[in-house]
Amino acid sequence: MIPQHIICTLRSGVRCWQHRSVLGTVLRVEALDFRSVRCRSTSAGPVRSMEEILTRVVVPLPTYETREKSPPPSESNSVEFMHFYRSLEKEEKSQLLAKLSHDFGVDHKGVSELAGKLLDTQQRDLATILQVEDRLRYSLTPRYKQLLNHISRVESGVKFLVDLRADLLEIISSKASDSPHIRDLNGTLKSLLSEWFSVGLLRLERITWQSPCEILQKISQYEAVHPVRNWTDIKRRVGPYRRCYAFTHAAMPGEPLVVLHVALTEDISDNIQSIVREFATLDSEEDVNKVNTAVFYSISSTQAGLQGVELGNVLIKRVVRELQSEFPHMSQFSSLSPIPGFSSWLQGLLSQHRKEGRVELLTDCEWRKVADVTNTTPDTNALDALRKLISTGDWTRSERLVHILEPALMRLCAWYLYGEKRRGYALNPVANFHLQNGATMWRLNWHADTSPRGVANSCGIMVNYRYFLQETTSNSAAYMHNKVITATEQVLGLISQFQKNSKL
Amino acid sequence: MIPQHIICTLRSGVRCWQHRSVLGTVLRVEALDFRSVRCRSTSAGPVRSMEEILTRVVVPLPTYETREKSPPPSESNSVEFMHFYRSLEKEEKSQLLAKLSHDFGVDHKGVSELAGKLLDTQQRDLATILQVEDRLRYSLTPRYKQLLNHISRVESGVKFLVDLRADLLEIISSKASDSPHIRDLNGTLKSLLSEWFSVGLLRLERITWQSPCEILQKISQYEAVHPVRNWTDIKRRVGPYRRCYAFTHAAMPGEPLVVLHVALTEDISDNIQSIVREFATLDSEEDVNKVNTAVFYSISSTQAGLQGVELGNVLIKRVVRELQSEFPHMSQFSSLSPIPGFSSWLQGLLSQHRKEGRVELLTDCEWRKVADVTNTTPDTNALDALRKLISTGDWTRSERLVHILEPALMRLCAWYLYGEKRRGYALNPVANFHLQNGATMWRLNWHADTSPRGVANSCGIMVNYRYFLQETTSNSAAYMHNKVITATEQVLGLISQFQKNSKL
Amino acid sequence: MIPQHIICTLRSGVRCWQHRSVLGTVLRVEALDFRSVRCRSTSAGPVRSMEEILTRVVVPLPTYETREKSPPPSESNSVEFMHFYRSLEKEEKSQLLAKLSHDFGVDHKGVSELAGKLLDTQQRDLATILQVEDRLRYSLTPRYKQLLNHISRVESGVKFLVDLRADLLEIISSKASDSPHIRDLNGTLKSLLSEWFSVGLLRLERITWQSPCEILQKISQYEAVHPVRNWTDIKRRVGPYRRCYAFTHAAMPGEPLVVLHVALTEDISDNIQSIVREFATLDSEEDVNKVNTAVFYSISSTQAGLQGVELGNVLIKRVVRELQSEFPHMSQFSSLSPIPGFSSWLQGLLSQHRKEGRVELLTDCEWRKVADVTNTTPDTNALDALRKLISTGDWTRSERLVHILEPALMRLCAWYLYGEKRRGYALNPVANFHLQNGATMWRLNWHADTSPRGVANSCGIMVNYRYFLQETTSNSAAYMHNKVITATEQVLGLISQFQKNSKL
Amino acid sequence: MIPQHIICTLRSGVRCWQHRSVLGTVLRVEALDFRSVRCRSTSAGPVRSMEEILTRVVVPLPTYETREKSPPPSESNSVEFMHFYRSLEKEEKSQLLAKLSHDFGVDHKGVSELAGKLLDTQQRDLATILQVEDRLRYSLTPRYKQLLNHISRVESGVKFLVDLRADLLEIISSKASDSPHIRDLNGTLKSLLSEWFSVGLLRLERITWQSPCEILQKISQYEAVHPVRNWTDIKRRVGPYRRCYAFTHAAMPGEPLVVLHVALTEDISDNIQSIVREFATLDSEEDVNKVNTAVFYSISSTQAGLQGVELGNVLIKRVVRELQSEFPHMSQFSSLSPIPGFSSWLQGLLSQHRKEGRVELLTDCEWRKVADVTNTTPDTNALDALRKLISTGDWTRSERLVHILEPALMRLCAWYLYGEKRRGYALNPVANFHLQNGATMWRLNWHADTSPRGVANSCGIMVNYRYFLQETTSNSAAYMHNKVITATEQVLGLISQFQKNSKL
Repeated sequence: MIPQHIICTLRSGVRCWQHRSVLGTVLRVEALDFRSVRCRSTSAGPVRSMEEILTRVVVPLPTYETREKSPPPSESNSVEFMHFYRSLEKEEKSQLLAKLSHDFGVDHKGVSELAGKLLDTQQRDLATILQVEDRLRYSLTPRYKQLLNHISRVESGVKFLVDLRADLLEIISSKASDSPHIRDLNGTLKSLLSEWFSVGLLRLERITWQSPCEILQKISQYEAVHPVRNWTDIKRRVGPYRRCYAFTHAAMPGEPLVVLHVALTEDISDNIQSIVREFATLDSEEDVNKVNTAVFYSISSTQAGLQGVELGNVLIKRVVRELQSEFPHMSQFSSLSPIPGFSSWLQGLLSQHRKEGRVELLTDCEWRKVADVTNTTPDTNALDALRKLISTGDWTRSERLVHILEPALMRLCAWYLYGEKRRGYALNPVANFHLQNGATMWRLNWHADTSPRGVANSCGIMVNYRYFLQETTSNSAAYMHNKVITATEQVLGLISQFQKNSKL
Repeated sequence: MIPQHIICTLRSGVRCWQHRSVLGTVLRVEALDFRSVRCRSTSAGPVRSMEEILTRVVVPLPTYETREKSPPPSESNSVEFMHFYRSLEKEEKSQLLAKLSHDFGVDHKGVSELAGKLLDTQQRDLATILQVEDRLRYSLTPRYKQLLNHISRVESGVKFLVDLRADLLEIISSKASDSPHIRDLNGTLKSLLSEWFSVGLLRLERITWQSPCEILQKISQYEAVHPVRNWTDIKRRVGPYRRCYAFTHAAMPGEPLVVLHVALTEDISDNIQSIVREFATLDSEEDVNKVNTAVFYSISSTQAGLQGVELGNVLIKRVVRELQSEFPHMSQFSSLSPIPGFSSWLQGLLSQHRKEGRVELLTDCEWRKVADVTNTTPDTNALDALRKLISTGDWTRSERLVHILEPALMRLCAWYLYGEKRRGYALNPVANFHLQNGATMWRLNWHADTSPRGVANSCGIMVNYRYFLQETTSNSAAYMHNKVITATEQVLGLISQFQKNSKL
Repeated sequence: MIPQHIICTLRSGVRCWQHRSVLGTVLRVEALDFRSVRCRSTSAGPVRSMEEILTRVVVPLPTYETREKSPPPSESNSVEFMHFYRSLEKEEKSQLLAKLSHDFGVDHKGVSELAGKLLDTQQRDLATILQVEDRLRYSLTPRYKQLLNHISRVESGVKFLVDLRADLLEIISSKASDSPHIRDLNGTLKSLLSEWFSVGLLRLERITWQSPCEILQKISQYEAVHPVRNWTDIKRRVGPYRRCYAFTHAAMPGEPLVVLHVALTEDISDNIQSIVREFATLDSEEDVNKVNTAVFYSISSTQAGLQGVELGNVLIKRVVRELQSEFPHMSQFSSLSPIPGFSSWLQGLLSQHRKEGRVELLTDCEWRKVADVTNTTPDTNALDALRKLISTGDWTRSERLVHILEPALMRLCAWYLYGEKRRGYALNPVANFHLQNGATMWRLNWHADTSPRGVANSCGIMVNYRYFLQETTSNSAAYMHNKVITATEQVLGLISQFQKNSKL
Repeated sequence: MIPQHIICTLRSGVRCWQHRSVLGTVLRVEALDFRSVRCRSTSAGPVRSMEEILTRVVVPLPTYETREKSPPPSESNSVEFMHFYRSLEKEEKSQLLAKLSHDFGVDHKGVSELAGKLLDTQQRDLATILQVEDRLRYSLTPRYKQLLNHISRVESGVKFLVDLRADLLEIISSKASDSPHIRDLNGTLKSLLSEWFSVGLLRLERITWQSPCEILQKISQYEAVHPVRNWTDIKRRVGPYRRCYAFTHAAMPGEPLVVLHVALTEDISDNIQSIVREFATLDSEEDVNKVNTAVFYSISSTQAGLQGVELGNVLIKRVVRELQSEFPHMSQFSSLSPIPGFSSWLQGLLSQHRKEGRVELLTDCEWRKVADVTNTTPDTNALDALRKLISTGDWTRSERLVHILEPALMRLCAWYLYGEKRRGYALNPVANFHLQNGATMWRLNWHADTSPRGVANSCGIMVNYRYFLQETTSNSAAYMHNKVITATEQVLGLISQFQKNSKL
């Protein structure tokens, strides 16, 4: 079921793939390193060979009647396609996917005929209607869906498709190809991935210093929120008073899909330094009596191709169960989350106000103090100065400025998280994620991430989204259905200060 | 997300499920033994409560626009449905499934409207067509599909659905409910199961005497072809010169889905006794030089609910690879297969001929000999006698009869396997299975299964379907597409004898 | 380091072992099945070949000076010896061991010389004394100790030595060979085994229905106290409300060395039926709130050759820790133990009293009642009748007799356990075991083992040895050093009744 | 069996350890972090408390008669001793060990009496002699041996003893305490460790990138021969075309005891750079056809305390088997070994010749060339220059010098390895190790380790000790018994050049 001999007839200038498929050679072919075969194409070649290959590997859909009687899928087609795809340059991949989605999609004529037939049968009995609907449903299957299905069945096929979807998403977002067919292909692949990565098939793994080096290296590489600096750092994050969990999937062994880092503490942490910078406890034994709180301080998805296949929320729920089982008396669950986008949102505001000559973001008193420190006048000059200080992060070097700006930045940030919306939901993606899960916007923390990255992203502010387990379901529903954000008095107090002092 | 308190208000005579769902109680509820709750229903109760429950747990489909923005599934619905379903009697289950499939299926009106809209857009640009098609596809989703999806996500949900499908298949085959909706539900569930049980998610396990007792007990119970008599018997079947492989699935741990037993021999076995009855080698070491051939002597599917989700053929392929890797010089692969149905097919023929007064199945000479032994006349009397002997198996006690009948039974059996068809494919399901996989009908074996069961099923005859690895792909295609059966001279010789001597 | 070619020169009538040892052939030789080589010996053969082989494989001890500079041990010697030993009949083994222990033991002359030298140096400095002592110690090493050490290093060598010691113990106890040399060999081997099976090297394993079939089969076979009847029975004993633990050893994989069965209950069980006969809970979930007590109802050593190497007491301690960790609120730990030997002790007493014409075991009143039921006179006739009833177990069939005998048998049994001694320690081995561990003799239970075996062994009585964790250390010391048995009032009450009513 | 309460009565100025031992508290005490208890001692304290503690924990040996009837060991003594020992400063440890070995050793008087008795019984029967010998043997047991045995039984006790022996060895080698008692203690402990680390109890593990991070970190730290620079480096050494094996022991989980690194090559490597510096193959697949040779390029013992307990040679043998099983056609096995000590031996020679005014190490011609390059005269001036060049490694920077010195250094090095002896065996410890194992001194390699370390140690020369599997046994015996070194013509040729040209 696999090409036994792959021969590039170079003389003819046309690539020619000869293969004899046999059950018995499957094993040997798996060992072939296809990457080394990398075929060079002549000028006319790639497009032509794309057509040839697609025509061969994307077999026609069986008729509705014979759909259950079709021969078992041949692995060779899938392997050939995977090999071919991997051998292409980025540009060519884009072409291939465009071709695949356009030429091997739904048979529109067939669909249209069945749609007509369905309308004709509306007066008929339900059994007939059901049957025509089923035919219609079948006819709406894109031809390429079968290929995707077959690929998922060969070794490392699922990983191939996850990566292929990452390519698709890049093509779509880069507007490289704005074709609706590409979007259709993306939709089809996403729904397949959703099936394969449904929760029943995921495995929760706790990562420790005893875990395979390979996994820990990947965990380190994937960590997007608070970058891992070295092996002592990662050892710390899987050591005492820490937990690191990941979902893995049977079809992608050794590949963590989404990773959650937890700190076990006595109180809900108000800064990240104490979690990722402090090494005092590296070799200590955990004292279970000191563990009262779980702080989720980092959650990272590792597979671009699984965008939209929600794993993170389920991981948090599973981890909560896990922790409750390990620490029956654990009573507080909260995130300590970054606020990506706050600084650039603020810069945007400042620029806009600059243009419009408005200075309402700070109170008059605050502007005066800023002007005082920056040796400017409390108008757009001060605003310019402030813009610059914030964009460079230099304001953090002046104790006075820090003191002056704290109330303003805190209330602005509260507004950014609570008040800025997109289609009615929180604009900030991290906020949106935790609010969807039913968390409460609990506390904004000043001086919470003093790393250059933290200052650049969110003026050093971080936020806790707290999970009151009795309320997550109702909170989630209120947010999802009615777009209501549950927040504490601290947050609401900042909002009301914002509304009083900073007018947008 | 799980009922915290499940209270049966017995006074009111109406079951009442109160629950407060919280993330935090998930763990505890999983430990509940729902089986003990088994609620008794009053006369009016079940139907009413069915409606109530279905209405609550089968939430409406989100609109097309909000389909990606729907709140995460609540586990409590799924768990409640599973619990409720399990608490029902068989009859009630059937009612519930009928109701579910009928009232919570596709929104026919919506489909019809979109079908109309699609016809209207046929002149429009492709982008519009694609979008309407996508909406149409979405509208063809039965509402209950969402429930099935959610159930698959909770613990042991997949196993629940597999068992639910077994119920559905029983309902359909028993004609208890011939509703097209039930068939639709079955189709939807089957396609979901096909996704979840796609090959990339299956794990091949070799079963040995070191495997968990639980697994070996199940393997023993599931063995359908050559029943396991005791623990020494099963020890033998996983011991030296034997291999036992199973597919398992991450979502159903500890549950072998399909099991393949292999004997490692020097020649292709021509009888089952030497494989399952001989214990000489129980404690011996395998001599790799004596292993030249793999005989697949039993393959059993264990999950009725996975009917139509083909796992067996893939298992054989994977096992072939496994064996080639362990025994690089292994050169012969063959089944030793039972022929279920041959005896009853033969009895059917004899009855029919009896009625029609025909005696062509045996030659005149053969009839004479039969008459001689049975003290009858070589006409329908002998036929009657023969029918009785075969139905009781008594013919095996007479050496003369065995001798007389061998050629006749062999050629009839060959015909049964090779010539009897259903929709053009082999009527015998085992034959059909191996021919689909690309095997060759290689040899019929007399005296191959002398157990009472073997005699009753197929007059003790068994057949080898041999896998020539170089030819399986072409054989499979020839069979699937052109209904051509590849067979050896022995088989074809028997067929030609049949055609000369026995006229149907 | 292994015989490459083993050739039996048959012509000469004398076995001849040729071998060429090479590092590289180790692997291949391990696959050889030595059992099939079994060489037949001629009349003069075995003794002669024994000498030959022993001379070759039991190499001389290096001198004291070169003892650290001796070449690395050659595996071939060990393997050859193991093979040869296994090929012998029982009688021949005994001869071989006698020869080995006699001819390859300590060099008495060398020892005696060093002893003389030691006496001479008594006036000298300590350094000299220490050195002579060390030489003396070395000279007391039997030459065969080296062979034993080498054998322990080859694969399955430790198991070989454990079995060889079982042979030694049998030889000693059967008086087949009363040689002091055999006892010396036994002592040497025992002290080596004690080192290898020291607790730091043992691994505690919990056995469940998920454990390998091989292990569960062995556990069933080894169960000596309450025989396992079938696979449902063993499934029960590793199922809910039960625990089964075993020590295993790295050098004997898959071989449980000592097995402890525990029932998890609400109260200290007073009979074994409810533990091994009741299957109600087979599929139930454990309710942790119902578990308050651990009842050790069976402990079996599996290796005869490890006699005297105490593992059982350590296993109990480890299991107590394990259980405390799993059930932090567990408050009661107790055995439910058989009383092997009570019936035969009682029969012995009755016989003796019969001879001596004494009837003090029962009170006059009791004798009268016995006489009444048995239609005898309350003298030696009744005694005869009682002896017979007890030896047949028939007394259990008469409710009246059971009623009459209960107080007598209970107080006699209490005395048997508490008062009968051997060198000052409890005569009953099970009592001695638990008392050494620091348990308290807590309660005698009537009707506690109603199986024929239980009636035959101990008139159906069983006893709880309870472990009060705060007191085990002091109890153990009191028993070991001062031979004091800690017992409860129930037991002491029975003892005082015994002393009042039954006079020995 | 563990101190329940450890109280330091500070007022009295004397440490006072109160404890109540109970079975039930074992678990809790293990969780105590004894390190934090670190008791400060008053001036008179340590010595006094040492006595107190030793007297309590080193219980007297039972008499010969009761040696099998002694109560089970109490863990509390061992744990207390371990804790106390760990709390001591280096100096105090030395004192404690001196005291332990001196005051709690053998009962010399008892030994002497038994020696006398033995002499008296020489005329008596063998049984009596054997018994007195056994008593004598028992009396030669140092009292502290029991403590060591007990410590080995508690958790991490074996590791404690291994580390304690490392302390002992340091004390002995530093002459801190030249007491014969310390040497006795060391000997006793070594023989116990030899038992516990006998090969049957060791487990061979292959280390890969999938192994626990903890293990790989340790492997990196322990690598003594060619230091691991970073994680990419270690990934390389466990990746394709490499093997890394370690022995582990059940009583010291997660602790590799001896580590062997192997390169899989086509030819016997003649330099280390190509093995540890080349990363080309990091992600490639192994091509089994390119693997013909196993080069052992590093073997490291990790536990100082296991000195003299030979594990390395057994590891090599086991790895050879492992490799033969994985690569049946592997035909060459060889080390690529460093030559520690060659440079300093050479420097020593040069210094000595300088003093004695001799210049025979190089030929006249060679001296002239050296003088020429170094602008000196071909006498002791040139010798001085050469000494300096070699001690700084600067000679490697002059191509001419390298060219001139190659033949001289090669023949000198050959002599160093082959001709320099200690008690008749090779002076170089690596040579001695491989020659003991039966390897052949196969090839000296110029430019084989160009790292600064390699140049400093052995002028960049390395040597292959090759294992001809058919000959290792005879080679080993020839070396061990007759001190014969097997070497190839290349080596012998260099020796004869040496003998001709350089006269020592």
